[in-house]
Amino acid sequence: MNFSKRIIAMDQSPIRKLTPYAERAKEHGKKIYHLNIGQPDILTPKSFMNAIKNTNAEILKYTSSQGIPELIDAFINFYKEYNFNFERDEILVTNGASEGLFFSAIAIADDGDEILVPEPFYTNYQGFLSATGIKTVPVPTSASTGFRLPNKETFSSYITSKTKAILLSNPSNPTGIVYTLEEMQLIADIAKENDLFILADEVYRDFVYDNIEFHSFMNMKEIEDKVILIDSLSKRFSACGCRIGAIITKNKELIAHILKLCQLRLCCPMLEQIGAVELLKTPKSYFKEVLCEYEQRRNVLYNELQKIPNIVFHKPEGAFYVIVKLPIENAEDFAIWLLNDFDINSETVMLAPAKGFYSTENSGMDEVRIAYILNEDDLKKSMYILKEGLTKYLSIKNR
Amino acid sequence: MNFSKRIIAMDQSPIRKLTPYAERAKEHGKKIYHLNIGQPDILTPKSFMNAIKNTNAEILKYTSSQGIPELIDAFINFYKEYNFNFERDEILVTNGASEGLFFSAIAIADDGDEILVPEPFYTNYQGFLSATGIKTVPVPTSASTGFRLPNKETFSSYITSKTKAILLSNPSNPTGIVYTLEEMQLIADIAKENDLFILADEVYRDFVYDNIEFHSFMNMKEIEDKVILIDSLSKRFSACGCRIGAIITKNKELIAHILKLCQLRLCCPMLEQIGAVELLKTPKSYFKEVLCEYEQRRNVLYNELQKIPNIVFHKPEGAFYVIVKLPIENAEDFAIWLLNDFDINSETVMLAPAKGFYSTENSGMDEVRIAYILNEDDLKKSMYILKEGLTKYLSIKNR
Repeated sequence: MNFSKRIIAMDQSPIRKLTPYAERAKEHGKKIYHLNIGQPDILTPKSFMNAIKNTNAEILKYTSSQGIPELIDAFINFYKEYNFNFERDEILVTNGASEGLFFSAIAIADDGDEILVPEPFYTNYQGFLSATGIKTVPVPTSASTGFRLPNKETFSSYITSKTKAILLSNPSNPTGIVYTLEEMQLIADIAKENDLFILADEVYRDFVYDNIEFHSFMNMKEIEDKVILIDSLSKRFSACGCRIGAIITKNKELIAHILKLCQLRLCCPMLEQIGAVELLKTPKSYFKEVLCEYEQRRNVLYNELQKIPNIVFHKPEGAFYVIVKLPIENAEDFAIWLLNDFDINSETVMLAPAKGFYSTENSGMDEVRIAYILNEDDLKKSMYILKEGLTKYLSIKNR
Repeated sequence: MNFSKRIIAMDQSPIRKLTPYAERAKEHGKKIYHLNIGQPDILTPKSFMNAIKNTNAEILKYTSSQGIPELIDAFINFYKEYNFNFERDEILVTNGASEGLFFSAIAIADDGDEILVPEPFYTNYQGFLSATGIKTVPVPTSASTGFRLPNKETFSSYITSKTKAILLSNPSNPTGIVYTLEEMQLIADIAKENDLFILADEVYRDFVYDNIEFHSFMNMKEIEDKVILIDSLSKRFSACGCRIGAIITKNKELIAHILKLCQLRLCCPMLEQIGAVELLKTPKSYFKEVLCEYEQRRNVLYNELQKIPNIVFHKPEGAFYVIVKLPIENAEDFAIWLLNDFDINSETVMLAPAKGFYSTENSGMDEVRIAYILNEDDLKKSMYILKEGLTKYLSIKNR
C-alpha cells in the first residue's frame, strides 16, 4: 500500500523516540530520571477534579465548537489579570496548544507556503506544519550566543514571497530564553513590513525567573491584527492530561475562519472544559508557589551543570528547559548509551537529543535538551549521573 | 491580512450554519425540535462518570500518544464480541472519529490527491479532506434509487491516477442505508484492483434495524491491509461529548505512520480515556434497549413521513438519519423559514438542508436530512409541524 509522501517524510517524535530504550532499561530494573519530557510533577489544583465530580450531566453532549460559554468567559477573566481585554468572539477553545497551532497554521498558510521559526524550536512545530504541506524555514540561533535572535537584516533574509508567518515560543521551549522587548520589536517590525502573522506560543508565559518582566506580543497594539496567541493550561496548572488550550486573537475574521475547523471536529470534551473553568479561577497564590519552586529547580540545575566540565549552556530565564552543548559528537548515541549501558546504583537519566529541535541539517547533533521538572533531590542526583556518565562515555570513546 | 486559500474555500458547517436563526427563534420564545443534529437524548451509561469520579489522580499527566493501555485492551475485548481479533499495535485512540478520519487521510493522501466518497456524505468529510489539500470526488447516488451504489463500471469511472482511497460511512450518515454484501464486494473489488484504501466509518455499526445483518469491511480478509476502520463511542454510548474514537487497521505500517501524528498532539485527555474503558465494558443489554428505542423511533418517523404528500424518502435501515426530498426548490430557504416565520403553538422544527451533504453543484438543493433522535412524542409533534409547515410554505410560494 502507498502512504502519503508527507507522512513518510515525517520523523517520529524525538522526545518520545527513545522510549523503547527506556522501557527496556526499566525492565532491567533501572530507575530512570526523566529529563526528556516536560511533564511537571506539581499537583494539579484540586478544583479541576472537584468541578468534574460535581457535574451531574446524565448525557455527555456535544458542546459548542467554540468552547462552552463558561470557559470562554473564564479565559476572558483570566486574561484581564494580564491586562488583556478580549471579547467572546476573539477566543476559541482547543484540544491543547497542539490543536491551536495546527488549526492556525492551516488557516494562514497553504501547501508550499513558508513559516519562519527561530531554531532550535519545539520539535512538533515542524511536524504540524509539514503534515499540512507548510515549509518550516528555520532562522538559526546558537548555544554560543545564548540563542538570541539575529539582527533584522539577517532575520529578514529568510523571507520570501511565500512567507506567511513567524512562529515562536516565548518563553522558549527548548532554549529557556525569554525574548527581550528589543527582540520582540524586531519581530513586530518584520511582521508589519512583510504583512506576516505572528504565531506566539505563550504556554510558558508564567514561568519567568529573576523578576524579568515578560512581554506578550498581544501587548503590541500596532500589530494587534497579526498576533495569534497560542495558549494552554497544561504547564501553568500542571494539567498536561487535560488537553485544554486556546487560540486568542484580535483578528475576528481569522477566528471566524478557524471556527470552521473547530466545527469539523465538533467540540472539545465536555468534562475537561468544565474542569478548565475552575482551573482558570485558581488564585494567584498557587502560581506564586509554583514559580518559586521552578526558580529554585532552575538554580539547582544551573549550579549542578556548572560542575560538569566542557559543556556550553546559558542560565535559562523561563519555561523549564535548557539546551546543553556536550563535548561529544553524537548526543543521541550518548542518550541511548545512558539508558542501555550506564547506571549508578541502578539509576540513570533520560535526555532529549537536541537534533530533533533543529531542521537545519547536522545542527544540534552534540546538544541535549534537559527539562528541569524534577524535585531538587532528584535533579541533583540526575545531574550527578549525567556528569559521571559523560566522563565515562568520553573515556570509552577516546580509548 | 491574508488567509489561506484552503480556509477561504471552506464552508461553514451546514449542520450548524442555521444556528443563529435558531437562537433568534428561541429568543422570541419558540421551542425548537432539533432534527438537524445527531445528538442522542439517551442517557450515557453511568459507568463513565463513575470511573472518572473514582480516579484519584493528583496530577493530570500526559498519557501514551497511542492511548492508555487499558483503553487499547478494552477496545480489543469489545471487538472480540464482533469476532474481530486485534492486536495492541493495530489500534490508536483518537479525539473522536473526526480526528481518526483527519489523521488517516493525511497519512494516505497528499495535496492534490483524490478520495472517492459516495454522495450524499457526512458533510465534514469534505472539510477535513480539503483542509489538507485532498480532493473529495463524489460518486453520486440519488434519493429516487434509495441511495444505492452505482454499478462497478460507473463507480470505477471516477478513479484517476490520483485516487488513493474510498471513504464511506456504513450505516450511512446521512442516508440511513446499510450497504449490502454485494455493494461491499463491489467496493472491495475496486479497492483491490486499484490498490486503494477503504476508509470505513462504522460509528453507527450498532444502529441497524429490521434484523438486517451488518457486514464490516474488516470481515473481508482479502482486503485486510486496505481497511481503515474509523470508530467512535459517541453514538453507540450516547457519549458525543466524551470525544473518544479510534483508528483500527490490520495494516501495522499504517498504524506506525499515523502514530507520528498522534505524537504531535501528544495524547487524548486522560480522564475521558479512563471513562471510555468502562463504556466499552457496557453490557450488551444496554444496547439492545437502545436499539429497540431507535427502531421504534424510525418506525414512528417512517409512518409520519408517509402522511406528508409529495415527498420522496426511503425507509432507513440504519444510523438515525433519513434524507427527504421535498416538493420545493430551496430546502435551505424552507429550513430558515421554519425557524423565522413559522410555528404551531410557539413550536417549530430545525432541519439540516441536505445540500451540505453533496459536493456536486446544485445537488440536494430540495432535500433535508432529518435526525430521528427525539422521543416518540416529540417526533410525532415534529413531523406534524413539518407537514403543516410544508403545506403553508408551498401555499405562500405558489401564491
